[in-house]
Amino acid sequence: MADNRKFWTDLGMDVEKHDLLCEALPEAFGDVYLSQENRPEKMDYFNMVVADIHGIRPQELVEFQKNGGKVVGTFCIHVPDEIVFALGAINTGLCSGSQFWVPGGEKVLPSATCPLIKASLGARFERTCPFFRLADLFVGETTCDGKKKAWEVLSKDAPMYIFDLPQMKRDKDREFFKDEVRRYIKRIEELTGNTLTKEGLKDAIVLINNKRRALQRLNAFRTLENVPISGRDVLLITQIAFYDDPARFTQKLNELCDELDERVKNGVSVYPKDAPRVMLSGTPLSIPNWKLHQIIETQGAAVVGEEMCTGSRYFEKLVDESGETIEEMIDALTDRYMSGINCACYTPNDERIEDIIRLSKYFKADGVIDVNLKFCQIYDTEGIEVERRLKEENIPVLGIETDYSDNDAEQLKTRIGAFLELLKDA
Amino acid sequence: MADNRKFWTDLGMDVEKHDLLCEALPEAFGDVYLSQENRPEKMDYFNMVVADIHGIRPQELVEFQKNGGKVVGTFCIHVPDEIVFALGAINTGLCSGSQFWVPGGEKVLPSATCPLIKASLGARFERTCPFFRLADLFVGETTCDGKKKAWEVLSKDAPMYIFDLPQMKRDKDREFFKDEVRRYIKRIEELTGNTLTKEGLKDAIVLINNKRRALQRLNAFRTLENVPISGRDVLLITQIAFYDDPARFTQKLNELCDELDERVKNGVSVYPKDAPRVMLSGTPLSIPNWKLHQIIETQGAAVVGEEMCTGSRYFEKLVDESGETIEEMIDALTDRYMSGINCACYTPNDERIEDIIRLSKYFKADGVIDVNLKFCQIYDTEGIEVERRLKEENIPVLGIETDYSDNDAEQLKTRIGAFLELLKDA
Ligand code: SF4
Ligand code: SF4
Ligand code: SF4
Ligand code: SF4
Repeated sequence: MADNRKFWTDLGMDVEKHDLLCEALPEAFGDVYLSQENRPEKMDYFNMVVADIHGIRPQELVEFQKNGGKVVGTFCIHVPDEIVFALGAINTGLCSGSQFWVPGGEKVLPSATCPLIKASLGARFERTCPFFRLADLFVGETTCDGKKKAWEVLSKDAPMYIFDLPQMKRDKDREFFKDEVRRYIKRIEELTGNTLTKEGLKDAIVLINNKRRALQRLNAFRTLENVPISGRDVLLITQIAFYDDPARFTQKLNELCDELDERVKNGVSVYPKDAPRVMLSGTPLSIPNWKLHQIIETQGAAVVGEEMCTGSRYFEKLVDESGETIEEMIDALTDRYMSGINCACYTPNDERIEDIIRLSKYFKADGVIDVNLKFCQIYDTEGIEVERRLKEENIPVLGIETDYSDNDAEQLKTRIGAFLELLKDA
Repeated sequence: MADNRKFWTDLGMDVEKHDLLCEALPEAFGDVYLSQENRPEKMDYFNMVVADIHGIRPQELVEFQKNGGKVVGTFCIHVPDEIVFALGAINTGLCSGSQFWVPGGEKVLPSATCPLIKASLGARFERTCPFFRLADLFVGETTCDGKKKAWEVLSKDAPMYIFDLPQMKRDKDREFFKDEVRRYIKRIEELTGNTLTKEGLKDAIVLINNKRRALQRLNAFRTLENVPISGRDVLLITQIAFYDDPARFTQKLNELCDELDERVKNGVSVYPKDAPRVMLSGTPLSIPNWKLHQIIETQGAAVVGEEMCTGSRYFEKLVDESGETIEEMIDALTDRYMSGINCACYTPNDERIEDIIRLSKYFKADGVIDVNLKFCQIYDTEGIEVERRLKEENIPVLGIETDYSDNDAEQLKTRIGAFLELLKDA
């Protein structure tokens, strides 16, 4: 801890303000995680990573930089990690999930902005997150209005690059996206001084696919009648996937899955028999946003899946590994990163609703809670049609809107509790 | 009026609900307009058009359709009218500026959507606007998130086409836009059964430029020390420009300008001497949204300009008329409609702030009121930088957020009143 304080000071952080976060996080983590019974032993690694989230991994990254390495921070699953790793740099997620950073964001953005965006800018401007200090390049994208305009503000304080996304999914948009991938390669080549090779890109594609495969393996356990791991734990692992070293993460996750295989043989479940099974859909849950999983699972229900960027949208689809030239691989990345992501930033985006229906069946969910981060207009608008379609399919659905504060916790508990009762009766 | 009711019924309107609007509008119009003293006589034409806004012009359009003509409705100044007129169809604006339509929009959209969008969808779904009944094609665009996602809802009820806009302004975005213009031409060719000719397009470019020239001429009067026409009247005229027949509108407006020339000779002003001069910037003021002009001008100040889509952004730049081939003209349209429009939907959009500074000097404004329609995230975020830059330039600025309701009228009066006092003292 003393070590960390010096490290943070050297990064130019506001260490005193940051102390407040350091005081609050262990308690939050303890409440949500350490109080759980019957957790898999191999969660230890993930517990450790998150317990020292502003220490271990940032220190690794700074070591890497001392040896000439570059760190790239991204905010959206549309921006291909593979490019960064292929060029010998490290990619790290920068999305922020704590109310702690929100007031800082509200100093530079309208308060009617989604908490994810406000927290991200707050973390930078208030100098209370090491990742937001150490990144050599911040990569924003033109997905939603909130982010598109927030990057203009962030760019006044941080080195930024904008990955420009199309808004539709026609052939011309595919070409547009491919061109953006090429431009991104150029920019990361500039940053690193390295030149992209087909071997490097192929290796990176396999590296990230392996992470996805491990996450798929993990999530398959949630389809079983006896679910051997809680939704809270899966969420935590998924959130860590955005930050951690991909090879190590994959190894540790596969070790956990081996343990879960054992549990399955022994019929172990972390949930009471007949616990209602809930899938979430909607906006991302960035670390340490565990609020909904906590509310749902402490009421005796199971979160068995997430149609979210911190969920299936992140790992469900692989990048085709058969590409032999860089152009073929760019094509494969475009399949995965543009055509393959059904984010509400696209119009139309009917495929997402089909995803929700399909995934709720895959995870054998009894019902779906469609989650919207306050002031996220694209998911909010889409939510109306999501609810209509799920009802049409006779899938029970509850639409909720929330932010990072705890103000609505009681109200959410009541509404979600009533929904869970309804699922039990069905 | 009896005539109109049959006409509206034939259009499939909800005539009884619409009666409520018919009852309210004349009073609103009387309050804002007919109470003004010393109005130019040639405002008569515009008074008449607006007094029967759901009668005269819609009837003309339906007559036109009976003879095989097509009517295209648009929502944004990015979509080139010229294409529609060049192909023998008629373009009409569809943006809606009354609270009357908002509750209907809130039935199909999140309430956290800007009132302009809610009113537009409300006007369609509640069947209380003839323009929203009669249009043969509704052309949406991918500008802001609110509209992008609202078109998905509207397309379930109305024939829609999406004009896809780039989000940046690089060379590749220009090519993207040009391609969208070409696709739009094809779509309107399909609708009309006509084929675009270079003569037709050239004529349409001149037709719409002439409207812009007349609006420029009108607005130049506002730069004078003795302003011969009120801001309210100019706003009304600008709003009518979106709906009216362009040739007739231009003629009528030039006649008004001739009268204003006379007024200038005689040193006539509609404002008291030393009235503070205010320019507005920000989101559009669609018909019949006269709220801010009314509040400002009834407090003894003058609105001398609008950096808005219902203002300079609409008429300030002409389309180059020297193009000889269709491709050259598409290029000229792209200059005007993409590069030439500094909407907050682009990133970055620094040119807009330069526009505000430049226009506030052109109109000799004593201060700027930056207006944001509630839940318009792009202008809201940009507003922070607008205020910062204007202060840097020593231009007094007041940022306000409002919607279509009257709930905030008292609060706005107070805040605007205080700002006007400050301008007087300066
Ligand atoms: S919700 Fe959309 S914009 Fe947000 S991280 Fe996911 S893909 Fe990106
Ligand atoms: S949750 Fe919505 S508003 Fe927030 S960053 Fe994601 S897409 Fe944008
Ligand atoms: S503000 Fe932008 S999106 Fe709205 S009408 Fe104007 S140009 Fe179009
Ligand atoms: S005012 Fe803003 S939110 Fe409303 S339609 Fe225009 S750009 Fe979109």
